[in-house]
Amino acid sequence: MFNLLLINGPNLNLLGKREPSIYGVQTLESIESELNKKAEKEGVNLATFQSNSEGALVDRIQKAIGQVDAIMINAGAYTHTSVALRDALLGSEIPYVELHLSNTFSRESFRHNSLLADRAVGVISGFGPMSYQLAYNGILAFLKHQK
Amino acid sequence: MFNLLLINGPNLNLLGKREPSIYGVQTLESIESELNKKAEKEGVNLATFQSNSEGALVDRIQKAIGQVDAIMINAGAYTHTSVALRDALLGSEIPYVELHLSNTFSRESFRHNSLLADRAVGVISGFGPMSYQLAYNGILAFLKHQK
Amino acid sequence: MFNLLLINGPNLNLLGKREPSIYGVQTLESIESELNKKAEKEGVNLATFQSNSEGALVDRIQKAIGQVDAIMINAGAYTHTSVALRDALLGSEIPYVELHLSNTFSRESFRHNSLLADRAVGVISGFGPMSYQLAYNGILAFLKHQK
Amino acid sequence: MFNLLLINGPNLNLLGKREPSIYGVQTLESIESELNKKAEKEGVNLATFQSNSEGALVDRIQKAIGQVDAIMINAGAYTHTSVALRDALLGSEIPYVELHLSNTFSRESFRHNSLLADRAVGVISGFGPMSYQLAYNGILAFLKHQK
Amino acid sequence: MFNLLLINGPNLNLLGKREPSIYGVQTLESIESELNKKAEKEGVNLATFQSNSEGALVDRIQKAIGQVDAIMINAGAYTHTSVALRDALLGSEIPYVELHLSNTFSRESFRHNSLLADRAVGVISGFGPMSYQLAYNGILAFLKHQK
Amino acid sequence: MFNLLLINGPNLNLLGKREPSIYGVQTLESIESELNKKAEKEGVNLATFQSNSEGALVDRIQKAIGQVDAIMINAGAYTHTSVALRDALLGSEIPYVELHLSNTFSRESFRHNSLLADRAVGVISGFGPMSYQLAYNGILAFLKHQK
Amino acid sequence: MFNLLLINGPNLNLLGKREPSIYGVQTLESIESELNKKAEKEGVNLATFQSNSEGALVDRIQKAIGQVDAIMINAGAYTHTSVALRDALLGSEIPYVELHLSNTFSRESFRHNSLLADRAVGVISGFGPMSYQLAYNGILAFLKHQK
Amino acid sequence: MFNLLLINGPNLNLLGKREPSIYGVQTLESIESELNKKAEKEGVNLATFQSNSEGALVDRIQKAIGQVDAIMINAGAYTHTSVALRDALLGSEIPYVELHLSNTFSRESFRHNSLLADRAVGVISGFGPMSYQLAYNGILAFLKHQK
Amino acid sequence: MFNLLLINGPNLNLLGKREPSIYGVQTLESIESELNKKAEKEGVNLATFQSNSEGALVDRIQKAIGQVDAIMINAGAYTHTSVALRDALLGSEIPYVELHLSNTFSRESFRHNSLLADRAVGVISGFGPMSYQLAYNGILAFLKHQK
Amino acid sequence: MFNLLLINGPNLNLLGKREPSIYGVQTLESIESELNKKAEKEGVNLATFQSNSEGALVDRIQKAIGQVDAIMINAGAYTHTSVALRDALLGSEIPYVELHLSNTFSRESFRHNSLLADRAVGVISGFGPMSYQLAYNGILAFLKHQK
Amino acid sequence: MFNLLLINGPNLNLLGKREPSIYGVQTLESIESELNKKAEKEGVNLATFQSNSEGALVDRIQKAIGQVDAIMINAGAYTHTSVALRDALLGSEIPYVELHLSNTFSRESFRHNSLLADRAVGVISGFGPMSYQLAYNGILAFLKHQK
Amino acid sequence: MFNLLLINGPNLNLLGKREPSIYGVQTLESIESELNKKAEKEGVNLATFQSNSEGALVDRIQKAIGQVDAIMINAGAYTHTSVALRDALLGSEIPYVELHLSNTFSRESFRHNSLLADRAVGVISGFGPMSYQLAYNGILAFLKHQK
Repeated sequence: MFNLLLINGPNLNLLGKREPSIYGVQTLESIESELNKKAEKEGVNLATFQSNSEGALVDRIQKAIGQVDAIMINAGAYTHTSVALRDALLGSEIPYVELHLSNTFSRESFRHNSLLADRAVGVISGFGPMSYQLAYNGILAFLKHQK
Repeated sequence: MFNLLLINGPNLNLLGKREPSIYGVQTLESIESELNKKAEKEGVNLATFQSNSEGALVDRIQKAIGQVDAIMINAGAYTHTSVALRDALLGSEIPYVELHLSNTFSRESFRHNSLLADRAVGVISGFGPMSYQLAYNGILAFLKHQK
Repeated sequence: MFNLLLINGPNLNLLGKREPSIYGVQTLESIESELNKKAEKEGVNLATFQSNSEGALVDRIQKAIGQVDAIMINAGAYTHTSVALRDALLGSEIPYVELHLSNTFSRESFRHNSLLADRAVGVISGFGPMSYQLAYNGILAFLKHQK
Repeated sequence: MFNLLLINGPNLNLLGKREPSIYGVQTLESIESELNKKAEKEGVNLATFQSNSEGALVDRIQKAIGQVDAIMINAGAYTHTSVALRDALLGSEIPYVELHLSNTFSRESFRHNSLLADRAVGVISGFGPMSYQLAYNGILAFLKHQK
Repeated sequence: MFNLLLINGPNLNLLGKREPSIYGVQTLESIESELNKKAEKEGVNLATFQSNSEGALVDRIQKAIGQVDAIMINAGAYTHTSVALRDALLGSEIPYVELHLSNTFSRESFRHNSLLADRAVGVISGFGPMSYQLAYNGILAFLKHQK
Repeated sequence: MFNLLLINGPNLNLLGKREPSIYGVQTLESIESELNKKAEKEGVNLATFQSNSEGALVDRIQKAIGQVDAIMINAGAYTHTSVALRDALLGSEIPYVELHLSNTFSRESFRHNSLLADRAVGVISGFGPMSYQLAYNGILAFLKHQK
Repeated sequence: MFNLLLINGPNLNLLGKREPSIYGVQTLESIESELNKKAEKEGVNLATFQSNSEGALVDRIQKAIGQVDAIMINAGAYTHTSVALRDALLGSEIPYVELHLSNTFSRESFRHNSLLADRAVGVISGFGPMSYQLAYNGILAFLKHQK
Repeated sequence: MFNLLLINGPNLNLLGKREPSIYGVQTLESIESELNKKAEKEGVNLATFQSNSEGALVDRIQKAIGQVDAIMINAGAYTHTSVALRDALLGSEIPYVELHLSNTFSRESFRHNSLLADRAVGVISGFGPMSYQLAYNGILAFLKHQK
Repeated sequence: MFNLLLINGPNLNLLGKREPSIYGVQTLESIESELNKKAEKEGVNLATFQSNSEGALVDRIQKAIGQVDAIMINAGAYTHTSVALRDALLGSEIPYVELHLSNTFSRESFRHNSLLADRAVGVISGFGPMSYQLAYNGILAFLKHQK
Repeated sequence: MFNLLLINGPNLNLLGKREPSIYGVQTLESIESELNKKAEKEGVNLATFQSNSEGALVDRIQKAIGQVDAIMINAGAYTHTSVALRDALLGSEIPYVELHLSNTFSRESFRHNSLLADRAVGVISGFGPMSYQLAYNGILAFLKHQK
Repeated sequence: MFNLLLINGPNLNLLGKREPSIYGVQTLESIESELNKKAEKEGVNLATFQSNSEGALVDRIQKAIGQVDAIMINAGAYTHTSVALRDALLGSEIPYVELHLSNTFSRESFRHNSLLADRAVGVISGFGPMSYQLAYNGILAFLKHQK
Repeated sequence: MFNLLLINGPNLNLLGKREPSIYGVQTLESIESELNKKAEKEGVNLATFQSNSEGALVDRIQKAIGQVDAIMINAGAYTHTSVALRDALLGSEIPYVELHLSNTFSRESFRHNSLLADRAVGVISGFGPMSYQLAYNGILAFLKHQK
């Protein structure tokens, strides 16, 4: 049995309400609840957290040390600008998956670079809400394989 | 009748107290109050907000969705580093004006690039406290023209 | 009482006739005449000049030395390529405002750089014909403040 | 019922035989056969192709036009150098997923850029053989959603 | 007698708990307490502050205006990304020393650039917890020299 | 029946007199006259213009609005430096072909970039005086195809 | 009487079947046949070759040594990535024209650079199938002039 | 006996009237007259020309073909932006010296590059009006040596 | 006793027939035969392979796994563009020497970078056919030293 | 008991005599003597060396092999240009501290890069003569900790 | 009466013996002696120095402090690589002229940048041995003007 | 019979004593003596020189003019920084081979560029002490071929 933490960064609380052509119509609550049901069935313990504040995200990751087997993180805009988030993830020594709803490579050039990707287990982007399912499956397979 | 939101980013609460050779001697409170008087006379509803925290600024912009016709934003240092602020503004789908007290082009090179400018209605910089008046006039003209 | 000079660079004589999605439908003549009426009322003396030739623009700026308190300049394409215009403005030692109809930051990347901006009093872009009004107000406030 | 094509580029026929610290110990045959079983159960028709030759990969993609609903492609080294592969995929107008066994962002800098990613439905990297499962699930969800 | 402020940025609260090969085994509390004892003996008043939030760090620096003779700052990840912190330090007009536990020049290339260094009194990096002692000695010598 | 305008930029009046190893021995007059004969036979109306002045070239293009179906332009040195010419061509909304006598790609690196090419119907370079014939044929085919 | 070779690179066999908004509706066969008729009438011997394989294109160019007076080449994607093709063309010492259906300067930035252009007789791009006619006329004029 | 041409570019007619800290207090007329006297004494024929217009400068250089043994040129701002001037000078096949009053290397970075220097006989900068004397002496020595 | 493989990339089959000023007059057959004689005498088993196809070169390297003690490779143009070749060499885990006939550093700038060099035992360039002898001696010394 | 070597590079013999606004008024002799006294008291053996010659500095470092426990080096201008000095330090395998009197980050951009820093124990800059004291304390703490 | 120092850097002792197409046929001794005669006549005291060693050149410049009114320096290769020379010249606070025999702008790109030029009184290049005469005249005029 | 000169640059006198994982265990004396024996047998006259001083290396190369048929140079760190060495080698007009013990392409990026390579006969790197043997054989073959 595994403990997972799903972290969503800035503006992802707007999901389903903003720019549907880029981010789709499903809300974050609905995505989290779908994932929670799936996790429950499989005996996985899933915690979720969203914040628009870089500091609060760092705090949450630090709190996860010793509590959590892996992190799924959609850091949104902070993917491209936050060395602090990178340091929190590396400092926590918890394996993590980076995920994105949209395909970041088809957007503005400053979204092509990630400060988290090179140290992630893996990266998934572009599948909309399905990206969360894939990240969940990917990290779970990784954890089972690690054991 | 329009609802406007004026947002000021990090360190702008120091206005009138810091580096007067760059930022002048008028305080932010005085700037806001002058603008408020003008707005009242013209039947415009003006809300104001200042924070040093990127996350709090994102929260405030999100709160404005559906409440506000346009935003005037002096994002200060976050102009040059915050993709999260950009995402909040674009996600809100509220038209906005970017403004600066000082002429950002005559300062350090990392201030020459703005992450907000390309999607703004317009940009104003260098006129000191007068920049707020010009931004107010500019965005109001834009809103009237839109109608 | 102030003497102002409004300078328009290459292709701005086409205003109202070309690419309306970028530049709008108002002609330069109409913009100049609106501004002239406003200036007259306020006892400001406004001269205007437009040319497609870099050399003629330099000549006009030189002629303004000792005649003019401030310059409003929409240098169009020369904003991005003319060191000669910069030299004329700096050589004249007349304060100036740089203005643009369109938001230059949302256009081709070679329009993101200005050879005039760092030495301008201030910069205004993106408000269409309203940019001229804002520039006028901005430079006037600057001159009154200077006194 | 869907027709899928799985394409593997240069050196992926060495899987399980080379650099296990980077690519793991499972062979390509075993990966393809696992995926085939899964596809069969779900009534999906899966074709597979591997080649070390850029031209042969282009040929295979062209042959898929009108035959295939989506492509999963691990283009290996050609991900970073082949405009021809990009043109074949775009010319075919078949949606595709880009996938990688290793996390390309933790390797040499010339592997950080992909010529295929910006036009892909989505991108998956770093999960080892599991990347193929995730790509399969991702593209299938996409196709069902498209219908 | 001097008033000093020691500021520690994001993830430095993890000191002694994370990545010991990079940051060593001493905790921040222990470093602060050692420094406090030394300061007390020498009749120096030392305040300390740590936060993971950029905004909170800016707030703290602003609060120090008029209260503090100098700042010692280990801004951690924000050293490389925060223009807001730079603005707070410059706006406060308080002299400061930049310090780092690890040698930032032997780490990832995005850590080679500091947004604070060019305006600092001096910079110290690489001596582990000893960096705090050196920074303290350095800034004290600077203050005595200033008098 | 079509109206065409052939524009030649700076120093092309020296053709046949300067640097024959680069530009050949035929004069501009002879090229224009050859092209004129061909045009006459085919019932095409051809106007020609050459100037060393960027402003005069802009003026001429503006004058062509509403008079001319297409422009053939050898902008010479201004190809690489004149945003004003680009703006005139785009503002005129007249389709144009960019042409060069010499192969610009085998010359100094600052000649490898064109400010006109991306919005041209097509580009022809390197065929000497024959480039004019090819440009004429190309633009005529384009116009007939447009009809 | 001349011997010409027309070479088409990767994906050009899809002409008329793919992305008509970029490449038009005429097939490669039809283009080749039109050109063949023209050549026959003028007593020119025209061979044609298309391949998606870089190696096969190199082989074909080598085979042309001593057989062919000039080459017309639309190298498609290999224009931007193949040093091998450049070496084959230079090694063959056969004069060649580079041609493109679309205007490569209005497409992705990695298509703005050509590894063949600086050593070509001339370059033609953007005229659709007409580009082949222009290249044929251009290279024939070159050959006659060489004699 | 030699014929020399001295060309001065944009804003140099302001000499002695503008920015004396950069350009000194002597006027262009006085510089030209001093040089003329010296030339007369030595039996050298000196013509002078100044214009703010790039096109007029190109015209003047073309007119000098066959009339002049060497050119001394202070192209001012056009030094850094005018490929047309370069083409005129190279097209004329007249040897030339590039000169500047101020030391261009101590000014803005866009003044560090010259489009004329690599093909000049020599370059002189920084000696104020004395630069003209040195250029005169240098080019005369060159011409005598050539003979 | 060692087994060596000599691989020659694109256009090297033209040796002795093309651009003798760069590549000399000796044919590849003659180079291979000279090397073969030398190898035979010393009891070394030498296989040779040349292809213009990137894929065929990758195939050949893969085939060498377990058969060959070291590879000498003159990858020609693919040195600078083929990540696939790099992957094949690294995947094979066979030590290799990179060699060139000409001095690649005195040619076009895109030949200054090699995708193979950093993982090679050593690199030799510029000695003409002698480069093959030196590479043979160098790799043999390396193998003997390894034992 | 430790043996330390203090090395000063080019122009540091001018200390106290040159550019006092940058380097202060204390001479190198006085700095060395102060440090010597301190070292003597603490039973540390301190040798000093200054040279303007890169080669002499390399020679001195080599001579220190096996004689010295650590080096303090203010390499002055050679910090930014000398790979030879780096090689000598690394080749000696002696731990070293890099130090500077002035804050190199507030000076010309070519002083922002150090060829020594990434392999140093630590770096200290900006504290004037106090930098030597801090470097001495830092390296001593490092040596004691190493034991 | 003035004291001047002429410094020549590495390889200038080869003048007249090496690469005459670049550097001419006159020896350094002859250049120095010509200049000496001229100086003597005009009551100017001229010292000369040449060395291939960067350190010796720095030593010589330091020795000139307080002895010399101005320096003429042809630093040869060190112009482009020596920060130490720059520091010596600035530290000496002696005005200097930078001079070159050849036109450095027409040579390799690494010779286009000078580490000395921005702080020189002026720069002269390209006139062969005459460059020394011009530098002498230029610096003398500067000194007389300074008085 | 030939006269050869072997030059070794900075820190190569440490060979066999420093960083054996990079440079091996053989001393420079032993390498030189091995090479000397070989040369003697073949009737070749070999001189050797090593210095840590750039100036001394330049002096030695100059001394070789007219005495030596070819130079073998391992310039060590100066390979990447010394334009003076390049000038000495080119000025001497003696053919030279550049050689390195280690593979410079697998080390720090500032070692990937050589200021000597483009004008060398050939370049050899990565074979340890064997690099000297290969360089000797290579340059001898070159000299015999020249005759």
